[in-house]
Amino acid sequence: MNSFIAKSARLRSTPFTERIEAYGVESYTVYNHMLLPASFKGVEEDYRHLKENVQLWDVSVERQVQIKGPDADKLTQLITCRDLSKAKDYICYYAPIVDDKGKILNDPIIMKVAPDTWWISISDTDVVLYAKGIAIGKNLDVEVIEPNVNPLAVQGPKSFELMRRVFGEEILKMKFFHFKRYPFAGHDFLIARSGWSKQGGFEIYVDDDVKGLELYDALTLEGKDLDVRPGCPNLIERIEGGLLSYGNDMDINDTPLECGLDAFVSFNPDIEYLGKSILEKQHAEGVNRSLVGLKLQMDKISITKFIPIFQGSKMIGELRSACFSPKFQCCLGIAMVDKSEQDTSQPLQISIEGNQITAEITSLPFTK
Amino acid sequence: MNSFIAKSARLRSTPFTERIEAYGVESYTVYNHMLLPASFKGVEEDYRHLKENVQLWDVSVERQVQIKGPDADKLTQLITCRDLSKAKDYICYYAPIVDDKGKILNDPIIMKVAPDTWWISISDTDVVLYAKGIAIGKNLDVEVIEPNVNPLAVQGPKSFELMRRVFGEEILKMKFFHFKRYPFAGHDFLIARSGWSKQGGFEIYVDDDVKGLELYDALTLEGKDLDVRPGCPNLIERIEGGLLSYGNDMDINDTPLECGLDAFVSFNPDIEYLGKSILEKQHAEGVNRSLVGLKLQMDKISITKFIPIFQGSKMIGELRSACFSPKFQCCLGIAMVDKSEQDTSQPLQISIEGNQITAEITSLPFTK
Repeated sequence: MNSFIAKSARLRSTPFTERIEAYGVESYTVYNHMLLPASFKGVEEDYRHLKENVQLWDVSVERQVQIKGPDADKLTQLITCRDLSKAKDYICYYAPIVDDKGKILNDPIIMKVAPDTWWISISDTDVVLYAKGIAIGKNLDVEVIEPNVNPLAVQGPKSFELMRRVFGEEILKMKFFHFKRYPFAGHDFLIARSGWSKQGGFEIYVDDDVKGLELYDALTLEGKDLDVRPGCPNLIERIEGGLLSYGNDMDINDTPLECGLDAFVSFNPDIEYLGKSILEKQHAEGVNRSLVGLKLQMDKISITKFIPIFQGSKMIGELRSACFSPKFQCCLGIAMVDKSEQDTSQPLQISIEGNQITAEITSLPFTK
Repeated sequence: MNSFIAKSARLRSTPFTERIEAYGVESYTVYNHMLLPASFKGVEEDYRHLKENVQLWDVSVERQVQIKGPDADKLTQLITCRDLSKAKDYICYYAPIVDDKGKILNDPIIMKVAPDTWWISISDTDVVLYAKGIAIGKNLDVEVIEPNVNPLAVQGPKSFELMRRVFGEEILKMKFFHFKRYPFAGHDFLIARSGWSKQGGFEIYVDDDVKGLELYDALTLEGKDLDVRPGCPNLIERIEGGLLSYGNDMDINDTPLECGLDAFVSFNPDIEYLGKSILEKQHAEGVNRSLVGLKLQMDKISITKFIPIFQGSKMIGELRSACFSPKFQCCLGIAMVDKSEQDTSQPLQISIEGNQITAEITSLPFTK
């Protein structure tokens, strides 16, 4: 059933809301108490456009939690299981935030933006309140705020040409998951080569609303012949690419190891973070369940809540995200499944809208 | 511009979502990462129905943060400026959550549901992460979780008759802002005489999905001749009633004293809470700005972001919520306005969609 979104100041607008509404937003979701477009011309049409052209994404919802002060390094390390002890001030770190039970509270990108200042570019939970709580409780000398920073992503294969036109050749030299400041109209913008798609692109951390709109308009103008248009994180593209979504594929009931994020969990004896001993134990013993890819022989699917997965009469997991994939010509799902059941040759069944669907476990990210 | 809401598991459904969707939800908002209906047959029609009849509200979004354990009293008191030292286990306490700067992070109802257990029934921020952070930082012996509790509100003048039919005469004896457990179908439901309207009613804290649906269906059936139907917190009714909305009328940049919540700020020397010394200082010196009511001579208004308020060329505040009021036959607004400007006879101007509107400061709650 289609319902409208009811707007209010509580669902915050962004510096770019007027621009994208003038263009036409088909649907919104809400993320960090803020409006995030979910489709413009239909999810599948948006997907096709993204894979061939370039899109401007108003991802202001990627709020920054700024931790600044003499104890900033300590606090930032304490709340993530990734080793930040050698963090460079030009690299983006995908770094799960965990609690004292080793459960995942958020999966942000963390950047050291100044010697005593970190930006945590968050997914959809109030990390600012968690960081504040820890800082207060441990009496740390830091300031924890959410600054007025509104990321604008430029995504798609033609994003490189568009960014070259606006920022110059120099920007093409930047490596993936690096960041640097580049001038535009007299203002230095922090820009990362990153973004929540596999089509290539950049994220511009807009810290000045007026200059940000100038930049938005310049990107629109300079990209006319590249068919630039507003876009947004795309359900199909992100599932095909195996990009996890906090709140969908993982939440506070999961550990990073259960979510396959082993590469971002440090067991370096020299660093201290919350939940470390629990994650060490889980790492040593092995996880009991983990995220897997599923292929489902259906031609459409829409997930609005976790769907139980059965093997015979036994519930062995839950489907958390899914879409029809034009590339794979079947439905793809991301599911949490008991580890002991993942190797058997017995098929899995999922009941979707009264139909029994057979599912096949596959790798994540998906491969043909 | 009207856009649809894009659903996903991240915007959590509730035990009642299927029921209300079968009835038809015109619009949703998102609150605590969960779907909250915002209208069924239009906000004004819903308002008229609510004032005359009885509605079932799926307010599962009022999540509970459960603080349990030997240090539960200490932690709960630490994060709110309301004095809970004499809290009774049958009374609901409206109790602002504050940080170490005295800023308001949430404005929940707090209930002591067992000798070592508190439920914080939150507005729209992740209090669970804040409480967890403080507990971890101070090494307190508590468990902080969000239990599977999904409040169902029964609101409107005929709610008393409907609840009498389902729970018996006894429930009519309960006083406003009291709570107690009442049996239905062999299950004890915690029920409070409360709700986010001024039309009277109850909130049922549903802690069993299956029994909750049985109850939902019984309320629907028993209320047929009372014209019971699904409803939701109503923009017009709540503004006319002067009920504040966290995220709209107040946020992390405000203190409870600036929001007129003086009655819920304790200066009892025997209790300790975060930000107390700052609130004591602000109380002694007086606030520089405060929430006021505004009357605007317009026949419709829709607020999606704070609107600056001017006196001559000077910006003196911002309009945060507003609606057209059928009762007052003008638009009503809730605004944060500099204290020094509130007594002058000079009119206030607000620019809305290019029109200059004159506003008159009035009391809050509004009176004719």
